[in-house]
Amino acid sequence: MGTYHELEMITVLALLEYTILGIMVGRARQTYGVEAPATTGNPDFERYFRVHENTLEALIVFIPAVWIFALEVNYHFAVALGALFLIARIIYASGYLSAANKRSAGALATAAINAILLLGTMIG
Amino acid sequence: MGTYHELEMITVLALLEYTILGIMVGRARQTYGVEAPATTGNPDFERYFRVHENTLEALIVFIPAVWIFALEVNYHFAVALGALFLIARIIYASGYLSAANKRSAGALATAAINAILLLGTMIG
Amino acid sequence: MGTYHELEMITVLALLEYTILGIMVGRARQTYGVEAPATTGNPDFERYFRVHENTLEALIVFIPAVWIFALEVNYHFAVALGALFLIARIIYASGYLSAANKRSAGALATAAINAILLLGTMIG
Repeated sequence: MGTYHELEMITVLALLEYTILGIMVGRARQTYGVEAPATTGNPDFERYFRVHENTLEALIVFIPAVWIFALEVNYHFAVALGALFLIARIIYASGYLSAANKRSAGALATAAINAILLLGTMIG
Repeated sequence: MGTYHELEMITVLALLEYTILGIMVGRARQTYGVEAPATTGNPDFERYFRVHENTLEALIVFIPAVWIFALEVNYHFAVALGALFLIARIIYASGYLSAANKRSAGALATAAINAILLLGTMIG
Repeated sequence: MGTYHELEMITVLALLEYTILGIMVGRARQTYGVEAPATTGNPDFERYFRVHENTLEALIVFIPAVWIFALEVNYHFAVALGALFLIARIIYASGYLSAANKRSAGALATAAINAILLLGTMIG
């Protein structure tokens, strides 16, 4: 697998981003006094929770799709889209955590990247 | 990977189904007036939300399991089970979105497919 | 793929654990009278629900990370960490299902395993 180092690194970095967002949910539990097992009841906590969950919802598509795209369409384009995914998630998280109505730009960027990966593989 | 085209296509189609279900959640937010970050409060919206989430819960099992089954047990049987998974998710979504108590058939079909993939690999 | 049998088995066992936790959510729905699509309203049910969801949140990291670690760092160490992941999830589930404040040990063990997989790959 020595030839796939860049895409392995993109995958690991995407999972690290997601892990950091999960740690932020744990801290938000304490900040806003939302005790487990509750995940609702405080809109500020809920934004942290949804940022993490939405990133999970994006990763289940991104990880298989970026690898199939890399193998079947174009490896270097897959790595470039993967780098954009990492950036799109930072835009999404920082937007959503500042205000719920500022989540659209990062969400659309993520959706566009995943759509290119899926549709690009179907056409290719 | 040229020999795995059918299973790559099944994987991409399953992720496309899931993406469409996610777009339907976004539309249901507007239809039923459920503003982010809330995911509860309107049972009609919650059915759209749960269809999407339950499909995520199924995909985390299906994707690794269908590939390991394909490599270790039987590739063509894996592709056939994959095609059934795509259909089972349509049955599940259309049932659940018509009424919460009509979700069982599609849910059981999905569970059966994933169980065959997991137990088939353990026996094989 | 004949050389990866142990790690395939770890992956399948992790998905089986997760499937069993999902079946327990279905039973808890009936025990505590929480009708779909609701996932909140009864704290006892919510603990079952969160055990399942949190395991999904862990698996999206664990599965890609343990495979990349196996390929790039050390296969046998990956299998050993995978076996610990299976145990950590049992500790987490049995702790959390007995009381919400007993979820920390299993959660920390899971987080530590996933962190070793991700950071070990980045360093290696």
